[in-house]
Amino acid sequence: MLSKKFIKRLKDDYGIVFNDQKLLEEAFTHSSYANEHPEGPRNYEKLEFLGDAVLELAISDFVYRHFPKLNEGELTRLRSNIVRTEGFSEFAVECGFQDEIHLGRGEELAGARKRKTLLEDVFEAFNGALFLDQGMKAVEHFLHLTVYPLIAAGKFNASRDYKTDLQEFLQQNGPVDIEYVTIQESQQPSNFVVELHINGKVISQGNGHNKKQAEQAAAQAALSKLE
Amino acid sequence: MLSKKFIKRLKDDYGIVFNDQKLLEEAFTHSSYANEHPEGPRNYEKLEFLGDAVLELAISDFVYRHFPKLNEGELTRLRSNIVRTEGFSEFAVECGFQDEIHLGRGEELAGARKRKTLLEDVFEAFNGALFLDQGMKAVEHFLHLTVYPLIAAGKFNASRDYKTDLQEFLQQNGPVDIEYVTIQESQQPSNFVVELHINGKVISQGNGHNKKQAEQAAAQAALSKLE
Repeated sequence: MLSKKFIKRLKDDYGIVFNDQKLLEEAFTHSSYANEHPEGPRNYEKLEFLGDAVLELAISDFVYRHFPKLNEGELTRLRSNIVRTEGFSEFAVECGFQDEIHLGRGEELAGARKRKTLLEDVFEAFNGALFLDQGMKAVEHFLHLTVYPLIAAGKFNASRDYKTDLQEFLQQNGPVDIEYVTIQESQQPSNFVVELHINGKVISQGNGHNKKQAEQAAAQAALSKLE
Repeated sequence: MLSKKFIKRLKDDYGIVFNDQKLLEEAFTHSSYANEHPEGPRNYEKLEFLGDAVLELAISDFVYRHFPKLNEGELTRLRSNIVRTEGFSEFAVECGFQDEIHLGRGEELAGARKRKTLLEDVFEAFNGALFLDQGMKAVEHFLHLTVYPLIAAGKFNASRDYKTDLQEFLQQNGPVDIEYVTIQESQQPSNFVVELHINGKVISQGNGHNKKQAEQAAAQAALSKLE
């Protein structure tokens, strides 16, 4: 059961009172808990499926309207900066979701409560539940109080340096040999293809108008496989 | 300019009359035409950015409600069967969009009007324009007359055979050597990793609970790079 304190916080801070309390409970129920408590709520995965699409549209719509001068590529990059795991997991923590997640014993001991991907999943599931319970307007109202101000303030504008991120990610567990090999260079139309080798093994490829872009794309592809 | 016949068809068949005619024109303007006619409408790419998210949510919401017994993985698979290029391009043709696209001369000569990816883009852009002009309810009404009945009838239920699709795709231009190499097999928990080699070059990897699943995943990853 969600805490009374949290239910009150949802009402006081965000004006949210669920009509269907079961949907709200479902959004905070991890599969490990649902397996241990078959009589309890379903796990949040179906709400996460829906919430993912709800957030994708809400954020696309917001950046489309709020940044009229950005072109399609810039909008896409901004959206992907916002919806990547770290972004939503921070909001989940700020909204007090972390303490409310129903976890099975093993996952609790394994530290799942602090896992960014799990926090992101719960944030998505919560927005999926809110959408089902009260529609898109309610989701937008919640995001106006949480996510949108930070988008408007430019928190996500900086384009990500995927090469640096990949290096940091890989070297958590000791030194790793990372090599970017240009396998195609054509000028007109400009198209560079770069292959990314990690410890001598081909992990990904990237394309771009120049070598730098292609390397970033290869690093991004590798990160999305690994993260 | 869109044809009067098409404007009439939108009204008669789908009950759609745009408030902002410029949005509708924009949805049918390819970048090649916009470049040749700088005084004309902007190209459809920003509407496509938005329409992609609009369709993703509309279809997620529909399958969530219409197939209550499917689990999250099945819903995700069904959604991806629906939103893949071939699906939307067929709807674009059925709705008479194909003849209305504003193309530049070079692209017209190159046969772009029949290109599936372009038809899909225009279908997305149209739904993005409709969303901006009249909101989600109007999009859902349009999809109830076009896409939803086919989803409900099970047109997209068959899970796709990615290995066969990849083979057909690659062999359009002559024989190709396709090899699936199992590089990891563990039983508890079950995890298979398969590497896909095309003409001796590693193209993608796939994971799964068994070898068949892992091969399908590797083929799917390769297709999403190539298509």
